[in-house]
This record gives sequence, structure tokens and C-alpha cells, in this order.
Amino acid sequence: MNETNRVYLYDTTLRDGAQTSGVDFTVADKIAIAQELDALGIDYVEGGWPGANPTDNAFFADPPKLPRAIFTAFGMTRRPGHSASNDPGLSALLNSPAKAVCIVGKTWDFHVDVALAIPRDENLTLIADSIREIKARGREPLFDAEHFFDGYKANPDYALSCVQAAYEAGARWVVLCDTNGGTLPHEVEAIVTEVAKRIPGSHLGIHTHNDTENAVSNSLAAVRAGVRLVQGTLNGLGERCGNANLLSLIPSLSVKMGFDVGISKEGMGRLVHISRMLDERLNRTPNRHAAYVGESAFAHKGGLHVSAVEKDPASYEHVDPSLVGNRRHVLVSDQAGRSNILARLREVGVNVDPKDDRVGQLVDLVKQKEYEGFAFDGAEASFELLARRALGEVPDYFRLAAFRVLDERRWNAKGELVTMSEATTKVEVPGPNGPDNVMTVAEGNGPVNALDQALRKALIPVYPALEGMRLVDYKVRILNAQDGTKAVTRVMIETADRHGHRWATVGVSANVIDASFNALSDSITYCLYRSGAAIDSTKAA
Amino acid sequence: MNETNRVYLYDTTLRDGAQTSGVDFTVADKIAIAQELDALGIDYVEGGWPGANPTDNAFFADPPKLPRAIFTAFGMTRRPGHSASNDPGLSALLNSPAKAVCIVGKTWDFHVDVALAIPRDENLTLIADSIREIKARGREPLFDAEHFFDGYKANPDYALSCVQAAYEAGARWVVLCDTNGGTLPHEVEAIVTEVAKRIPGSHLGIHTHNDTENAVSNSLAAVRAGVRLVQGTLNGLGERCGNANLLSLIPSLSVKMGFDVGISKEGMGRLVHISRMLDERLNRTPNRHAAYVGESAFAHKGGLHVSAVEKDPASYEHVDPSLVGNRRHVLVSDQAGRSNILARLREVGVNVDPKDDRVGQLVDLVKQKEYEGFAFDGAEASFELLARRALGEVPDYFRLAAFRVLDERRWNAKGELVTMSEATTKVEVPGPNGPDNVMTVAEGNGPVNALDQALRKALIPVYPALEGMRLVDYKVRILNAQDGTKAVTRVMIETADRHGHRWATVGVSANVIDASFNALSDSITYCLYRSGAAIDSTKAA
Repeated sequence: MNETNRVYLYDTTLRDGAQTSGVDFTVADKIAIAQELDALGIDYVEGGWPGANPTDNAFFADPPKLPRAIFTAFGMTRRPGHSASNDPGLSALLNSPAKAVCIVGKTWDFHVDVALAIPRDENLTLIADSIREIKARGREPLFDAEHFFDGYKANPDYALSCVQAAYEAGARWVVLCDTNGGTLPHEVEAIVTEVAKRIPGSHLGIHTHNDTENAVSNSLAAVRAGVRLVQGTLNGLGERCGNANLLSLIPSLSVKMGFDVGISKEGMGRLVHISRMLDERLNRTPNRHAAYVGESAFAHKGGLHVSAVEKDPASYEHVDPSLVGNRRHVLVSDQAGRSNILARLREVGVNVDPKDDRVGQLVDLVKQKEYEGFAFDGAEASFELLARRALGEVPDYFRLAAFRVLDERRWNAKGELVTMSEATTKVEVPGPNGPDNVMTVAEGNGPVNALDQALRKALIPVYPALEGMRLVDYKVRILNAQDGTKAVTRVMIETADRHGHRWATVGVSANVIDASFNALSDSITYCLYRSGAAIDSTKAA
Repeated sequence: MNETNRVYLYDTTLRDGAQTSGVDFTVADKIAIAQELDALGIDYVEGGWPGANPTDNAFFADPPKLPRAIFTAFGMTRRPGHSASNDPGLSALLNSPAKAVCIVGKTWDFHVDVALAIPRDENLTLIADSIREIKARGREPLFDAEHFFDGYKANPDYALSCVQAAYEAGARWVVLCDTNGGTLPHEVEAIVTEVAKRIPGSHLGIHTHNDTENAVSNSLAAVRAGVRLVQGTLNGLGERCGNANLLSLIPSLSVKMGFDVGISKEGMGRLVHISRMLDERLNRTPNRHAAYVGESAFAHKGGLHVSAVEKDPASYEHVDPSLVGNRRHVLVSDQAGRSNILARLREVGVNVDPKDDRVGQLVDLVKQKEYEGFAFDGAEASFELLARRALGEVPDYFRLAAFRVLDERRWNAKGELVTMSEATTKVEVPGPNGPDNVMTVAEGNGPVNALDQALRKALIPVYPALEGMRLVDYKVRILNAQDGTKAVTRVMIETADRHGHRWATVGVSANVIDASFNALSDSITYCLYRSGAAIDSTKAA
């Protein structure tokens, strides 16, 4: 592929992505993410803004080794009244070990007049001086043209003169920013086309925000109009509605549009991993509907449809899921037919002869369970257990003999309202001389937490694999809502182990506590089954 | 605005949106959502597929009154071997009360050859016959051209002949579907431009999926190329990565592109509400980063930027947030909060002088409650009570002194697994000689039902208005999911009285039973307040 076919990727997860509400990177996070981005094959890794906050100072003071990527510092043009070489902000950038420096400057006349309050020509000088200084100090200069599209709409000549000043002063890349995120794709295409008449596309970049849900499309439109650098973030992190999502852009640019984005086939296969890694680091629930990398991105529902997909995946899937490290996912639902169940079984690694009589029984069992209110979409671990139990593969690790949960709310002697939950469980576990009945009692924040605590007290001495297992999500839904609190309750639980593996289980009962117990019980059993726990009577308490 | 400037909106939340993994609409959900869509001003509300499953059969058997929208049934073309008038699938559609019928048919030669396995000409006949039958039976016919873009890429002549067959047979709208979701915006624009040379744009529609994160952009590209009907879903629900998100499309089409989408200014102002209402119904966490309607969509971080935003919002916000019912979120105290609260108060019929000091206190109270985890979108009765209590308008009908709930699960003497819930409450109610403490005990199907029963036993003798009140929905969500069962629990309850009036309340606590009690207590209080119950000590037990 020739030079003009090469699109460079610039990641700003660690700087613009850090503006996301609720996101707070530690230095360790920044190091790990920068290394993942480098391994993926991203061209520019923007580490942050040295001089702006203690985290970025610490990160830039001792940055990770990035064998491939250009480590980049972000900052702003020199301020009025300082020469570029004496500007404290620019100095912080140039004293950092960054190989490239990206500075943001104004290009909207209104902001020059009101926010900077300097003559418009002086703004051009600020931009040109700053770029020249970066170049003189041996770093690669980039210019982020803030509010460029709004500026262009207000005063095209002035906006163009700003980006031309940066280009003529030696900016390697002039990046057109849709800072407020309100520009639509056809506008981006038209405006970039005009800019590309003055500055070659091989020196133009694009930076978009998702305020109209068009950040990805705006970036693609800019590339089609000539730009050859794209700024974005992993999972579309960023303030308000986020920045352009690199994980959606990469496969569209390379697989679909034929651009060389500098990422190898192996790198492409890591996209799902990188997406999940970031969510794990930030303790965010992964978006299962994310393009390309979401857990549901290649999910198929429905019996007839599933057999067609299996016969000819290419005619039902827009790309091969394995290209981005994803996989086909066959959902079990009340439309489940035999082919659906078989496909789903293969997916969870259960091998059964399609002619096996037990497949028919399993289809009936799934339908019966769904009629009772179970939902196996999104509770794959319960589905796998159901199947493996039907095939006789799951040992009885423990048996609940009884539980009792007491919840109380009252005014105490000091006149304060207090609540209390206490659970008692009696569990049968393997012991040295046959089954042992273990009784435990525990308090909790609420009834399910108390029950969880009491069960763990009983089981962890026998099954140490359960240590570190934690509940990460808990949802309750009432079915047959006509009957209100008398109706059937469905509880979905998501659990994680200490390695970050997650699994989801479901429980159904008229009683929310009982339904929670059922989901909890499946979750524990699944953890034990997956860890290969043996029923070892010698460990019994 | 003239006819060609009118873009029609077609909502498929209740059909294609129901394919979302984890989404499972009840009939009550479908009724409520259809009514919200109608009130918003959506042109076509697709209710589902009559004949395909029991929920859709029940919904179509007794559909809600929609004064404005065209209630639409979805199905498929007649099957080979049946005449259109004898086809069981088509009959189910035409025996439904739908005013319009949208049928899906094949347009990709490969699928005709392999999935249908009929001669390609016969497929054209299936399409034309089905459309003619719908028209002959006095319904408005629409044609969803499945896999149209992939089909066009493989065999443009055949794909075009399919949609022309539908159009010539009398389809009001021919909807071009990107079924696999892999088509990029520039391809959509090019292909739609070709189609529009054969079929007028005033009869063309678009249906896109978000597999490359371009569903919204693909829809906009199609409109720019001439189509005048857009199919999509609320919040972009839909299988895999979702369908085109109508809540992003509506403001871009109308506010930014100047199309008339048939939605009034008041309707536009309900977009945020509708987004949250759907999430609450489905027990999904709202996406705070959603374009236009997300909680963070107009969030500004503190400092200098905020005062600049306050001075000149238009230069920092791509649209006015109030246009879509959203508001600016800033860290400093903001006018937006105050006017928002005032608007919401007016909405629930609470009239208060904007200059009243208590409005400021109420703003602080709402913020405090929301910080604690309350969500008043979808729990309007609790919001109204909060406001009216702050204004001193709500009597203390009763006061809970204490409750205790016991849940038990054990094997009985016959070897059967039995569960039991028993609740004891101590409630202070007005009595003939001052407050009376009434102790009651009741059993229930589950802990919340037991508590509900015990409370009623105590209160109905004093407040007969509570007779006939019943719980119709009950939902639980965990906040701060990182902590699993130890986290804060939010319970939303929907209640109806014997006249069919419904109201929703919310309760928050670390303990699910306690949170349920809080929501239940609000629900009872709201019922009494609405019924105008007096605190009448002579009726006390």
C-alpha cells in the first residue's frame, strides 16, 4: 500500500478520554493502557498534559517504554505576553520526554475575541510561534484546531488562516477538531474538502465528538475527504457523549475501506481484549452492544435463522467476528429450536451428538424453564449448568438443607431508624465421614448479602476456589406484573472471580430471597465447576 | 414546510427492539410504550408480529387507542405454495386491527436461491401478491427489503427488481434494510441515490443497524439521498449492536437539518423523559453518554470553562439542551436546575411561585436524593410527594414504628421444598383517643408481599380508600454495582387502584426489603393523598 493509503491513528484515551464523567486514571492505569496501545500498533499515544495535574506529571516523569508508538504530550499554544521559549506551559511540554507535542489553539473568531480577548492577528502569531518552538526543540509538532468546524461556519477565512499558520510554521499534522460535537457528516465532508485545497490531506487530521452519535461517521467522512490522521479513544471514552471510538474506526477503515492503519492481523485480533481490559481497569460494565467488539455484536436469536447462519455465516455477518477477536454468539430464547440449542452447546464447549436423545429432552427442559420465567439470554452460566446437569456432568458440590433470613427495621433507643439482616443456612457438604451438615449465621447489608455471607462461611473451608469471588451486578424483575408482589420474581446475578472472569446466572421464584438464592447457588456451582474443584471430603470443615 | 421536507418516523422498538438480548416486553410494557410513542408524535408505531408469539397475540387482540399514530403490524410475505388470501401468516396480520401492515421480503439473490430455494421470479410474485392483498384488504402496505444493501452489491438488477415489484404493486413505502448492518454511510448514499432514480424518495424508507456504529449516520445519508421514512428504535434498542436510534435522529433531522418530522416543540421536549421511561421499564441502566438525551450530554467540568459556558452557552453547546428536555450539568449551582424543577412541578400540577424560597430548598433536596440513588424519572408519584411534603401539603397518614420480615426455605416432613415469608408490622395510626399503635402479622408469597399484606391489615380499617389498590410492577436495581449485594438498592413500584389509575414510586436503601418498604409507603401515601383521604380518628380500629 502506498503512502496516501496510510491512515495514522492517534489515541487520546489518556487525555481527552480522562474527561469522561466517572473516569479517573491512576499512573499505573496510564502505563498499562499506553503499553496495550503500543502493542496494538497505534501510531501516536497521547499520554496527557504535563504540567496540568500530579498524575500527568508523574506519568511523564517516568513514562513506559513504547517500542513502536510516538509518545505525545498535549498542551496549549503559548500565552499572550510570553515568548514561546519563555512560556511556562510550553516549557513543561518541551521538558517532558515526549517525542511529539500536540498543542491546541483557537480558530473560531468569536473565541479569539471573547475568550482570549486579543487581536485576531496575534492569535495567528501565537500558533505559528508555538509550532516553530516545538520544531526547533526537535519534537514533532501537531496542531489541534479547537472549534474548527464551528469557526469555519462563522468565518471560513479566519478559520483557514489559523490552520494555515500552523501548517506553514511546520506542523506535521493539522487536526481539525469538532470540539462541541455538533457537526454532521455531510458538513464535515464539505468543509474538509475545502481545507484540503489549502493543506495536503497527508498533513490533515480529524478529531470528533459523539454529541449527535456521528463521531465515527464524521471521522470516516473526513478520511474520505482526504485527512490521513484520526484522533479517537478506546471504547469512545470522552466528555459528554464521548470521542470517536477507535475500536469502531479501525476495522471499518482497514477491513471495509482498504486503508492501511498500521495494525497487523494479530493486532486486529486483540480489539475485543483491549476493549474489555479498559473496562476492567475502570470498573465499568462493558457495553455488550458495542460495534465489532461487544459481546452481542455477533449474537443471533431464533431457531430457523440460526441454522441458516451456521450454513453460511458470511451472508448473515457483516465481517468475520474472529477478525476483531470476537465470536459468534447464539442466544437461547423462547424461539429456541434444536439447531439453536446445539449451536449454543458447542459454543459453551459441550459436545453432544446431534442425534443424542438427550438433545430433545434438553430443548423441552429449556422451554419449560423459560415458561416458568427463566431467561437464559444474558445468563449463559445457568444455561451451561442446565445442559451439563442434564448430561450428568455437574457434581453436587453442596446441598442446601434450609435457610432463614430475618429483616428488621425499627427505631432504636436513641430514636434512630435501624435496619438489620441476618441469615442462617444449613448446608450439606462432603466431610471425612460422609456428608456433613454445616450451620452458619451471618449478618449483611440486606437479606441477599446476609445469605451470601452465610453460604460463603459454610463453603469456603471446603472449597477455597470460592475465595475472591464477588457479585458485580444484581437485578430483579417481576414477571406476570398484573399480580404485583404476588408474582414470580426473576433475579439475574453477575459474578466475577479474582482474575476478572465474569459469569451470569438466573433464579426464579415467587419469593425474591428464594430466587436470589437460586441464582447465587448457580453462580457458586459454576465457579466450582469452572475451577475444576473436586468433591474432596478430606477438606471438609 | 412542504411535503418533500416531511420525513416520516417509524418506530420498531416493540418488534425489532424486542430482539435485544436481555429485553423481554410484557403486554403492559407494550401498551405503555405505544402510548408514549403516540404522544411523542411518531407516525408509525409497529406493535409486533401477530401470530408469532403469545405476547404479540395478546397485544394485538386488545391494542391501546392511539389517537395519532398509525398502528402497524409486521410479518412476512406469503409463503410459496399458498395464495396471498389463503396464507396463514398474512391472514394473521390482516385479521389484526392494524391500520398498516409491513411485510419483509428477500431482495438478495443468494438468500432467494438458498434460504427460500425458489426461482428468483417467484420471489417477485410473492412480494407483489402480498402487497396487493394488504392493499385489497384496506390496509396501508409497507415493504421491508431485507438485506437490500448486500443484495444490491451482489446483484443490483435483481435487488432493484424486488423493490420495484413492491412499489408497483402499491407499497406506500419501500424500506431499504441494511439487515446485517455492515454498510458504510458513503455506500448507503450512493446506493440510495441509484434506487431513487427508479422509485420516488417520497415512497422510500431506510432501516439501519449499528454494527459499524454508523446506524444514525446511515439513516441521515439516506435522507439526504432522498428517502422520506426512517425506521428506528428508542435508545437504539435492537439485536446485536442495535437499530438506528430515533432519539438521536429526531433532533438532528429537525433542529439541525430543518426537516419536518411531525414532532411538536412539546414532543421534542419529552425526548429525555421517553428515553428514561424505556430504561426504567426494561430495568436497564440509562446510558449517561447518549447523544442529546444522556445525563452527561451537556455536562461541563468546573472552573473557567463553566463561567464561559454560562456567559455564552451557544458557543460551547451544539444545541440548546432544553430543546430535547435535557439540561446543562455544571458543578456550580445552576439556574437550569431551578427552572427544570419548576417545569417538573408544573407537570405534576404543583403550582409554586418561582420566587418562593422553598424552591431553592426543593432543588437542594432533589439533588441530595438523586445523589443518594433516587431516580424520579419514571417515579413521578414519589417526586410529587417529595415536593408536596416540602410545601407542607401532605399529612402524616401513618407512621411505621417497626417491621420484621422472616423468610424461610426448608424441606418439610414430606421431603418437599417449602418457602415461607412472614411479616410483622407495628404502625401508628390516628385513633379516637390520639395515636394508636397497631400490630399486625401476615404471610405472603415473598417478603415484600408479606409486608404489603401486613400493612394493609393495619391501614384499611382506618383508610378504606386503600381497598382495591394493587401492585402491578416491582423492579429492583443495584447501584454502585462494584460492591454487588453490599451496594445500595433502588426499588421502583407501580401501583394501580380499582379505577385503573396507575402511579410509580421509588425507594432506596442498602437493604432491598427496606427499600421496598419505602416505595410501598410512598405508594400508599400517594393513594391516600389522591383520594383526598382525611385523617379521621373516628374510623380508627
